[in-house]
Amino acid sequence: MKPHRKAGWIAGLMPAMALAACTSATPPAAMPAPPANPPANMQYLYGSGEAGAVSIQAFRALLNYAGEQVKARPVDSVVLAQGASLDAPAFAPCGQKPFAAIFDVDETLVLNLGFEYFDARTGQGFNDAIWDQWEKTGAGQVSPVPGAVYAVDALRSMGVTVIFNTNRAAANADATAQAIANAGLGKAVHGETLFLKGDDATGSKKDGRRWTIAGKYCVIALGGDQLGDFSDLFNQIASVPERRQAAIRGMAAKMWGNGWFALPNPVYGSGLKGGFEEVFPAGKRWDPPAATDGK
Amino acid sequence: MKPHRKAGWIAGLMPAMALAACTSATPPAAMPAPPANPPANMQYLYGSGEAGAVSIQAFRALLNYAGEQVKARPVDSVVLAQGASLDAPAFAPCGQKPFAAIFDVDETLVLNLGFEYFDARTGQGFNDAIWDQWEKTGAGQVSPVPGAVYAVDALRSMGVTVIFNTNRAAANADATAQAIANAGLGKAVHGETLFLKGDDATGSKKDGRRWTIAGKYCVIALGGDQLGDFSDLFNQIASVPERRQAAIRGMAAKMWGNGWFALPNPVYGSGLKGGFEEVFPAGKRWDPPAATDGK
Repeated sequence: MKPHRKAGWIAGLMPAMALAACTSATPPAAMPAPPANPPANMQYLYGSGEAGAVSIQAFRALLNYAGEQVKARPVDSVVLAQGASLDAPAFAPCGQKPFAAIFDVDETLVLNLGFEYFDARTGQGFNDAIWDQWEKTGAGQVSPVPGAVYAVDALRSMGVTVIFNTNRAAANADATAQAIANAGLGKAVHGETLFLKGDDATGSKKDGRRWTIAGKYCVIALGGDQLGDFSDLFNQIASVPERRQAAIRGMAAKMWGNGWFALPNPVYGSGLKGGFEEVFPAGKRWDPPAATDGK
Repeated sequence: MKPHRKAGWIAGLMPAMALAACTSATPPAAMPAPPANPPANMQYLYGSGEAGAVSIQAFRALLNYAGEQVKARPVDSVVLAQGASLDAPAFAPCGQKPFAAIFDVDETLVLNLGFEYFDARTGQGFNDAIWDQWEKTGAGQVSPVPGAVYAVDALRSMGVTVIFNTNRAAANADATAQAIANAGLGKAVHGETLFLKGDDATGSKKDGRRWTIAGKYCVIALGGDQLGDFSDLFNQIASVPERRQAAIRGMAAKMWGNGWFALPNPVYGSGLKGGFEEVFPAGKRWDPPAATDGK
């Protein structure tokens, strides 16, 4: 549809900012008042039927695809093999290994409502120490992504092992398993069906963990909200437009909805980068005619 | 993945706002400088590989579904019939009518890069007069949504008529057909394959136009970024959480990826509403333990 009734960033943000900045010549001692509403990206992801629809649709596509793979065992898994590139892809072999689907957790299967509520109200931006507290104490303040519980249950009914591969910390494995359980997603066992940052020496990279899993399972589907949930290779591309092109052309374009299943997340992550020149291609920038003739 | 390196709204917005508000006791005569970067929701939709992936996946699901419907003609279309409700759904019949798929245009098939570039830089918020100028003069500054050109071409190859149902103005029909053509989406003929606001007396409501189309065609798929692209009934629900529930439960939950296909749009529209109490359900709000014990 066409846009309507958007509040501009000036109208929406000037009053609180002006107040915070001008009532004193020194920096304000207290935090400014929280904004009147959550930002648009959170209204969308956590509050809209539209985002819920996109999520349910992604899980339905995943289940349709997984059902076909289980009926006719594929030769290859959907995990890019060690040494493969985006231009010369190769996939880890399936053999006769049992079936698995690998999912990221945060904003893929679980909505971090509690953390984002705090974040939006305080406006502090992301902070490792607070996120660590969230991992440790927030297991009660999550909800499942729409469609996730149905999908995970249906996969298990088909004989597909559901494996969680997240960048939450290995030190918080028990609390993360509890968050997964509280969201209605069942049992996660560290080292078996739960893989975490710190399980190997590659930090937040996930390829190593995927290769470990693909050594034991025929991985028929990957689900995630970030390109790094599918391959670390995307995050080696520094240019914002080149990274987007790598995801929507060539090999990757053939994988979306066809082994790789992407969930929406406009709230945070490695996709939220880029200045005006990177996000809006040359030749696609516009000014109203009235504004350019001096009016 | 877990959040990282997000800029908070305070850190991101304070400098420009403080400058604009404090350099003079009177309101500043000129617009404040544009923000350093586009907002996160535009970085996501227009700049990220992640959003491109979600879009391609939606179009692949639509094509898979349409291919099955063409092979085995359905009894019913996917257009809710006149008089139906979300609780008691009924669909317009297919009979032996030719196949069609109905798509919204803006942020469903076409990315309005030029308009959003202007909007983000000026921060004025949505304005009917400027949007009208955009409809009239912006046909060269659009791009297709990733996957849209492939999907539209493939549907036509299957014998499915592609019909555009948009809330752009009937008075701007020619310029809108040009924008559609420039995006690589082929020919749109007003009254035949292009339906616009002003074609009937119901304004921006789309059900009437859908019923007109379903009178001539067996509509096997709907594509849109807003719930109103599927049924006007959703927009009669004033409560933000009730509207979301209506989209992710009951009849609607069965339609996503199964006749109804949702494209991501966190930038504008009827899903971007709600205060903290509406977006974050009671019982899902959290504070770090350290912050609640007085630290």
